Amino acid sequence: MSPLPACQTLLLESRNGVLLIRLNRPESRNAMSLQMVAELRMVMAAVRDRRSVRALVLRGAGEHFCAGGDLKDMAGARAHGSAAYRELNRAFGALLEEAQQMPQVLICLLQGAVLGGGFGLACVSDIAIAEQSAQFGMPETSLGLLPAQIAPFVVQRIGLTQARRLTLTAARFDGAEAQRLGLVHFVEPDAQALQARLEQQLAQVLRCAPGANAATKALLLASVEQPRGPLLDQAASDFANAVMGEEGVEGTLAFVQKRPPAWAN
Amino acid sequence: MSPLPACQTLLLESRNGVLLIRLNRPESRNAMSLQMVAELRMVMAAVRDRRSVRALVLRGAGEHFCAGGDLKDMAGARAHGSAAYRELNRAFGALLEEAQQMPQVLICLLQGAVLGGGFGLACVSDIAIAEQSAQFGMPETSLGLLPAQIAPFVVQRIGLTQARRLTLTAARFDGAEAQRLGLVHFVEPDAQALQARLEQQLAQVLRCAPGANAATKALLLASVEQPRGPLLDQAASDFANAVMGEEGVEGTLAFVQKRPPAWAN
Amino acid sequence: MSPLPACQTLLLESRNGVLLIRLNRPESRNAMSLQMVAELRMVMAAVRDRRSVRALVLRGAGEHFCAGGDLKDMAGARAHGSAAYRELNRAFGALLEEAQQMPQVLICLLQGAVLGGGFGLACVSDIAIAEQSAQFGMPETSLGLLPAQIAPFVVQRIGLTQARRLTLTAARFDGAEAQRLGLVHFVEPDAQALQARLEQQLAQVLRCAPGANAATKALLLASVEQPRGPLLDQAASDFANAVMGEEGVEGTLAFVQKRPPAWAN
Repeated sequence: MSPLPACQTLLLESRNGVLLIRLNRPESRNAMSLQMVAELRMVMAAVRDRRSVRALVLRGAGEHFCAGGDLKDMAGARAHGSAAYRELNRAFGALLEEAQQMPQVLICLLQGAVLGGGFGLACVSDIAIAEQSAQFGMPETSLGLLPAQIAPFVVQRIGLTQARRLTLTAARFDGAEAQRLGLVHFVEPDAQALQARLEQQLAQVLRCAPGANAATKALLLASVEQPRGPLLDQAASDFANAVMGEEGVEGTLAFVQKRPPAWAN
Repeated sequence: MSPLPACQTLLLESRNGVLLIRLNRPESRNAMSLQMVAELRMVMAAVRDRRSVRALVLRGAGEHFCAGGDLKDMAGARAHGSAAYRELNRAFGALLEEAQQMPQVLICLLQGAVLGGGFGLACVSDIAIAEQSAQFGMPETSLGLLPAQIAPFVVQRIGLTQARRLTLTAARFDGAEAQRLGLVHFVEPDAQALQARLEQQLAQVLRCAPGANAATKALLLASVEQPRGPLLDQAASDFANAVMGEEGVEGTLAFVQKRPPAWAN
Repeated sequence: MSPLPACQTLLLESRNGVLLIRLNRPESRNAMSLQMVAELRMVMAAVRDRRSVRALVLRGAGEHFCAGGDLKDMAGARAHGSAAYRELNRAFGALLEEAQQMPQVLICLLQGAVLGGGFGLACVSDIAIAEQSAQFGMPETSLGLLPAQIAPFVVQRIGLTQARRLTLTAARFDGAEAQRLGLVHFVEPDAQALQARLEQQLAQVLRCAPGANAATKALLLASVEQPRGPLLDQAASDFANAVMGEEGVEGTLAFVQKRPPAWAN
């Protein structure tokens, strides 16, 4: 299998079916530069079809997850005018769409600043684990800007009712509030508890069949947009394929034999 | 009025406008067999247009609500290949759609195992009351399978954010967590409190006019899928019909006369 | 600038970019009369394009927010038959749509009765602040009627799961429960704390740029209904316009200069 792409803004580490991706620009609180966006998209494209990679863990190097867009890139775009800003912004939306659609389980570990674009990344995770002290927010409107690419993902994540309050007041809030809002699934008191929760959740993910998980995730995402009837027809076909496929045969046999299935070892 | 269909997998009991349906295969934790699916659909078709039936209460015989699909049926389908699995699976989705669209108020009492297909049934109820000790979960992916027909109903019930975590980790959780997730409306410490909550909720349902409730439920379900403008036009017509209809005349008169309306007796 | 329309059912007060609108029929718990609907729509049309008005605060005169539709108008419509009821009802839906789409931030202060149409108004606010003792509910079905125009807004606000229980049981609940259900953002113990919360939230709103807020609100509302791809394209254009526009230039400059932007003074 071809190696992962070489990256300057990311640290990659593969272990037991899990790819750890660390945003690595700690000197700027892992602000999302154009290069970082491009590298994240390259890495995701490279692992998308690797069934051996079953989960992605996304976190920041240093104390912060991601403080939003990179101001230096913004300044650079200014020289090239409107089209440059449009492209810079749209590329981040493409990253969010691609991250959302990854067949693997995407886990975000949220510490320190989770702002703007970092907030958007949290919104496309399958499992979000926050440290109590993390600082969440979308400060865009207080800068005269819009949370443009992330807005639809925020609405999908926490609903219109909270999304409108948070964006129109540029509110800041911590991990406990993020859990109450339904933005994250778990909140932990410190980095050690965060790591323990990650290990526990990874263990649960690895008990689930990789192909079944990928098909289920695709089905859930389709549920949001497609009409019910045809979706249930498609789901019934997917179900039949799963039952008769390798995972379904192994899974039901293991269940009868009261042993863990092959993929859980 | 024609009697209810004779059923082998269900116990039926009619009383004061309420039809109690008890899943009755306690020896297999009320696992949803093909026959049970067919009988549930027959019963619902028979009562759909009976305005005298104002609420349906769905619960399990014995200690469990419903532990999911029946493994014996699965084994039987194996001999007939892919099409048999597809049909078996799709029939359960049809049941969920029909249950969701029932004009009566559907109340689920959730005790013991509420797994897979049982979880799906809980997701189409109008009022869900769980015992604290109930065990909820979608174990499909841990068996190499998909929560195929129930996935869209789960997303509609609790949102994408929690649906993805629960399915991709095959998580188990209790009644209190089910309430936090917005899956159930009430959680009660024991069977006696469960019954008391049921009586209280039934009393409230019976204070509401049956026709108005049916029209309101249809309107809520349409809200999820139809564009706002035409929906509000339709709603205004429904409103005018209700005001000038028998229930509207009686309801507003009873209000002025400070007495309960006829349907509340 | 032209003055605000003269109103008989509303008290209007303008101060520091905030328009306070007080429903002023306390003798009937601010029941929503046809005239009040018409006047609210006129006032909103008049301020919609005034960028100097940055927030609208909607509350009731006296002890109640709004107890629902006006029974006298209902009685009057009876003489004119079905079409009159349809129009009366539909006009309120138009008001809700227009209120939802206002470019300004809409804040509702919820005290006393928040019933029927009053409940609907709460559902289109950007920030909802309730007093603990407020009484929320949709009593329509207990009167043989439908919560016709408000139903779609209730589903959008709190989701189908809770909307079906609340409407089909005509449940009453207080401010704390309204917050748990996600209907309101804040609940306060008394009128003084309510006012303090309002001031705090207004201060936060005024830190955000008016044009950026209007564009963000439009984007959030569009997110609910439009397909993702074209929406992100449009959002990227909006972003580019914002960055190069007056607010974006001032906002990023103020950020670099560590001073509040012009609109925050």
